[in-house]
Amino acid sequence: MKPVQLITLPVLLAVATCASIAQSADPLPSWNDGGSKEAIVAFVEKVTKEGGPDFVPVAERIATFDNDGTLWAEQPIYFQFAFAMDRVKTLAPDHPEWKEKEPFASLLKGNLKGALTGGEKALLELVGATHAGMTTEEFQKIATDWIATAKHPKTGRLYTEMAYQPMVELLAYLRAYGFKTFIVSGGGVEFMRGFAEKVYGIPPEQVIGSSGKLKFEIRNGKPVFVKLAELDYWDDKEAKPIAIQKHIGRRPIAAFGNSDGDLQMLQWTAAGSGPRFCLYVHHTDADREWAYDRESHIGRLDKGLDQARSKGWTVVDMKQDWKIIFPVPEH
Amino acid sequence: MKPVQLITLPVLLAVATCASIAQSADPLPSWNDGGSKEAIVAFVEKVTKEGGPDFVPVAERIATFDNDGTLWAEQPIYFQFAFAMDRVKTLAPDHPEWKEKEPFASLLKGNLKGALTGGEKALLELVGATHAGMTTEEFQKIATDWIATAKHPKTGRLYTEMAYQPMVELLAYLRAYGFKTFIVSGGGVEFMRGFAEKVYGIPPEQVIGSSGKLKFEIRNGKPVFVKLAELDYWDDKEAKPIAIQKHIGRRPIAAFGNSDGDLQMLQWTAAGSGPRFCLYVHHTDADREWAYDRESHIGRLDKGLDQARSKGWTVVDMKQDWKIIFPVPEH
Repeated sequence: MKPVQLITLPVLLAVATCASIAQSADPLPSWNDGGSKEAIVAFVEKVTKEGGPDFVPVAERIATFDNDGTLWAEQPIYFQFAFAMDRVKTLAPDHPEWKEKEPFASLLKGNLKGALTGGEKALLELVGATHAGMTTEEFQKIATDWIATAKHPKTGRLYTEMAYQPMVELLAYLRAYGFKTFIVSGGGVEFMRGFAEKVYGIPPEQVIGSSGKLKFEIRNGKPVFVKLAELDYWDDKEAKPIAIQKHIGRRPIAAFGNSDGDLQMLQWTAAGSGPRFCLYVHHTDADREWAYDRESHIGRLDKGLDQARSKGWTVVDMKQDWKIIFPVPEH
Repeated sequence: MKPVQLITLPVLLAVATCASIAQSADPLPSWNDGGSKEAIVAFVEKVTKEGGPDFVPVAERIATFDNDGTLWAEQPIYFQFAFAMDRVKTLAPDHPEWKEKEPFASLLKGNLKGALTGGEKALLELVGATHAGMTTEEFQKIATDWIATAKHPKTGRLYTEMAYQPMVELLAYLRAYGFKTFIVSGGGVEFMRGFAEKVYGIPPEQVIGSSGKLKFEIRNGKPVFVKLAELDYWDDKEAKPIAIQKHIGRRPIAAFGNSDGDLQMLQWTAAGSGPRFCLYVHHTDADREWAYDRESHIGRLDKGLDQARSKGWTVVDMKQDWKIIFPVPEH
């Protein structure tokens, strides 16, 4: 078993080196000093202190992050939903029947609320029409082309420029201390993989999300996956810790969310033995972003906020804790 | 985005360091020189040669391995099946009804063939009785206790001592060159995670397998996962590349199997652009292990063997290519 050990030393060295680099400057420059930042740094230093009572080996430093509302914005509608709406408009000329058929008819008239009165059925029809009936490679191209060009109606930014700069720093900070960072989101897994590596530094194999069923087919002598209009996994609430168990097989020691849909993931994380860190991003900044919680139709944070307070989890006050919300555009 | 880059240099250093260490001695000492070993080394050197025409970036160096018959032995029955049989015997006193009820009645009489005449239904009943109705943590304990003590009826070895030494070396060799190694097996994911890290150096989050459905429940104020007697994913044939797409989201550049159940994984791997490596382990050594292929009830290799030959994939001749099969016991 000697060759297995070859990798150990350099990995430890790499982690140690990163840690020293990170310590030399403020690794979280977009976070104001104080509560949330202090709590994060204290936790990371505690679990990475060799020989300390709370030391956690590198292999067990698993951190899971919700995406919508936690790593990037989610208002006024989930960004993937904006993608689906744009796809409906693009595909409409080939589907004259949509003019009469819901939810498409309402959507094409710009009536989002009307389109969604059909509830889950309407949503699945929409997903089926825009996310299925093509190969995974075809979808990947469509989704990455969209994300490279589409702009948010309110900010005028690319959607990827609406990732939260403080959270991007937090991801990198955790990785510099040997954490493996995962996305565990209700968003579509193939949609998120199109940008997660570039924007968050999270590789495809560490992105867990909702998904449709796939069919393996040989086309022109080459195997492809066809995306079917059938839900395979809806990664929300209880399904989040279950997805963690299925994909990661190890309980996270840190988990990050912003809504009641993340509560079970945080509960599962908190219930492990040894040091644990749970954090909610609380949207409190109506000027620079949006302010919403208990009454919001998107990203509702109600039970989670109560539980965070009673359990002493960290609650980020965006207005208070974050120096900037979005990255400074490079262009 | 500066902090993201912190990790890059040390990772590259780590990979470079490992590569130099690996080059200083033979990294595959249990492989005889010649065909298969040469093909492996040539591929690895080609895809890791910076600036070379076939260079593959570290992030894309994904290698997937079947487990039963590829990383460890699988005769005369899958080892997980031996575990299930032992569990039936252990649990029998609490289930007097099993004396009359198939497949348990036959199993308890030691009549394996009789137990399996019930086909898939019998198998699922057996899995339900031995792998469900408990929490994932309870199962993990039972499975790891068993694997730590149970011995193979023919060799008298612990099952984990029937991992193939040449393949364990191959896994470490690939990792030393920056590959991420995954198991993609029909075996139960929770069963394999109990030993994969220790035996193969593969962490839980890189083990993909068959699974039952899980239920999230709060018990005594603590969240647990209850294992249900309902199949969630059967990871064989087409389901293997689909599982790769779902969990990894990136096409492997190298894939390793031993049976027709691995063929679609190898086909999917081979169909990518750029350099690819597909390998079949061919069981040809009746003295030191077992010899079987086209007619075997376990690990049948028929179509796969034809395809490997017509496509020029590497076929390991265990008798010829491997100096030793199993590790030299430490005790």
